[in-house]
Amino acid sequence: MKLATYRDGSPDGRLMVVSRDLRRAVDAGTIAPNLLIALERWDSAAQALQRLSDMLNADTAAGSVDFEPQRCMAPLPRTFQWCDASAFLNHGRLMERAFNTPPIPDFDTVPVMYQGASDDFLGPHDDVPLPDEALGIDFEGEFGVVVGKVPMGATPAQALDAIRLVVQLNDWSLRALGPREMKSGFGFLQAKPSTSFAPVAVTPDELGDAWRDGRVHLDLDVEWNGQTFGHPNGGEMNFGFGDLVAHAARTRRLGAGTIVGSGTVSNADRAVGSACIAERRVIEIIDHGEPRTQFMRFGDRVRMCARGADGDAPFGVIDQRVVRA
Amino acid sequence: MKLATYRDGSPDGRLMVVSRDLRRAVDAGTIAPNLLIALERWDSAAQALQRLSDMLNADTAAGSVDFEPQRCMAPLPRTFQWCDASAFLNHGRLMERAFNTPPIPDFDTVPVMYQGASDDFLGPHDDVPLPDEALGIDFEGEFGVVVGKVPMGATPAQALDAIRLVVQLNDWSLRALGPREMKSGFGFLQAKPSTSFAPVAVTPDELGDAWRDGRVHLDLDVEWNGQTFGHPNGGEMNFGFGDLVAHAARTRRLGAGTIVGSGTVSNADRAVGSACIAERRVIEIIDHGEPRTQFMRFGDRVRMCARGADGDAPFGVIDQRVVRA
Repeated sequence: MKLATYRDGSPDGRLMVVSRDLRRAVDAGTIAPNLLIALERWDSAAQALQRLSDMLNADTAAGSVDFEPQRCMAPLPRTFQWCDASAFLNHGRLMERAFNTPPIPDFDTVPVMYQGASDDFLGPHDDVPLPDEALGIDFEGEFGVVVGKVPMGATPAQALDAIRLVVQLNDWSLRALGPREMKSGFGFLQAKPSTSFAPVAVTPDELGDAWRDGRVHLDLDVEWNGQTFGHPNGGEMNFGFGDLVAHAARTRRLGAGTIVGSGTVSNADRAVGSACIAERRVIEIIDHGEPRTQFMRFGDRVRMCARGADGDAPFGVIDQRVVRA
Repeated sequence: MKLATYRDGSPDGRLMVVSRDLRRAVDAGTIAPNLLIALERWDSAAQALQRLSDMLNADTAAGSVDFEPQRCMAPLPRTFQWCDASAFLNHGRLMERAFNTPPIPDFDTVPVMYQGASDDFLGPHDDVPLPDEALGIDFEGEFGVVVGKVPMGATPAQALDAIRLVVQLNDWSLRALGPREMKSGFGFLQAKPSTSFAPVAVTPDELGDAWRDGRVHLDLDVEWNGQTFGHPNGGEMNFGFGDLVAHAARTRRLGAGTIVGSGTVSNADRAVGSACIAERRVIEIIDHGEPRTQFMRFGDRVRMCARGADGDAPFGVIDQRVVRA
């Protein structure tokens, strides 16, 4: 099934079930008022949501309406935990060159992951308020998963079983602030403003064959101001989401609704382009001795859309404009 | 006023108002079911809670009962954001020597701060489950603040005004995992398991003169297995909480209920001891060429208690045992 959250004036929004083709939607507030509560009561809520989804897809759900992505908040407008990995090693190795940082220890055997802010996510069409163009405004196209409760020390297989939903996201980054925060050893904080999410969170079964090995085997189309920027495939992730969730749970329990991200989707084949500007810039440095692409300006737009096998957009579209805060 | 959260089977617990002397308590669930919701509705909830607090302190509150810290969860058993600084530069400089890490850029002018996990805090008497003694189990005695909504780009003065509550906490750390995570540049994740909180969160006015310059000017008594370990004073913090909250809000809004921590309380005067083992160990290395104090074992206890001017414990006591997960 596919779930979205409509803006209703509350911090957590209103839970909606969305049809497979993203054309219709139906209010699911009688099952759970919002997605965070549905995830906490998943064993009972999932069955009722699935029945409603089946009716919606059969065009027999009472009260269904046209789905309006403009009304969407992030599927989880806020949650209690957000951890983002860097699981595409191609990207990580290029970024080491960009930031001129020493090689990360055990980079190809132990995932790297930062703890992100989860109190204020942006919806797919919200403006993105940022304080200053000089901070190096960049996008990062990613996939992510939302889990139920995960016990401390869960194995990757157990972690994979705890995955409830798959999401598509843009992990906004401020590149001028990254190096100092990385060198501090304390990790990203100011360098990672609020993250944006595509309108629809989907259960893994909705992705069919594109969900396998704990990875999303779909191209992520990225456009910047209407120009194609890249379309790397999520299947090249060097750690699966089971590995990433287990990494996050090694020394602590994870609460229901925890989101774990893949890091910037990135492929070794440079012909497919990139899902963030920083990666393109370091490729330019390698090829030409200097970066040629500048970071974003206020008024710029980014559009991100994972492309299904049949050309559809299983998560819908992120299409946002960067504005001065 | 003073607030606590009783365990009631729900993830967010039950809001209680506690008397100034921590002897009596009264259920505040009719004002707000839990502290997180009270913080979201602070303008109205604070007045009602203050009236209830006044009645409790005057011994005229209907339904008041003996306060039982054993029934307490963390004041916020979970929240949407937790950021922890390292604002005692004495500690930070010693830790650089301990971890043999390069000097942090701009360490004395820009706060360092990591994003922590906020989905699963521990109460003051909860056992602390951890997977392995070999991970270097350590405590970190700290103070922290809980804020209301903070706009992006808030000044330190505005940030100070947004502080609703002051808390005392133990930021549990796994030292064997710290260096790899610091070197990755992505910051602490596995090295920071669930954080513990003293039972009572207090409004700044409850601290009287001990709350000034955005700092908690109280000694934090730390005992390990019944032996005094240290009693450093919180007033020596090199950045005030207004600076720390403003740092966290530079590129993003902060949601109501965000907690910002001071980092390990640490004084230049070595006679007062330390609030974490790692700091004592690096002092031993400096003095003796090698660390002499080992990290914690399963079954060990830590007790932490800020001491008020009149010998009372304004936040109550953290007293916990480390156990195998």
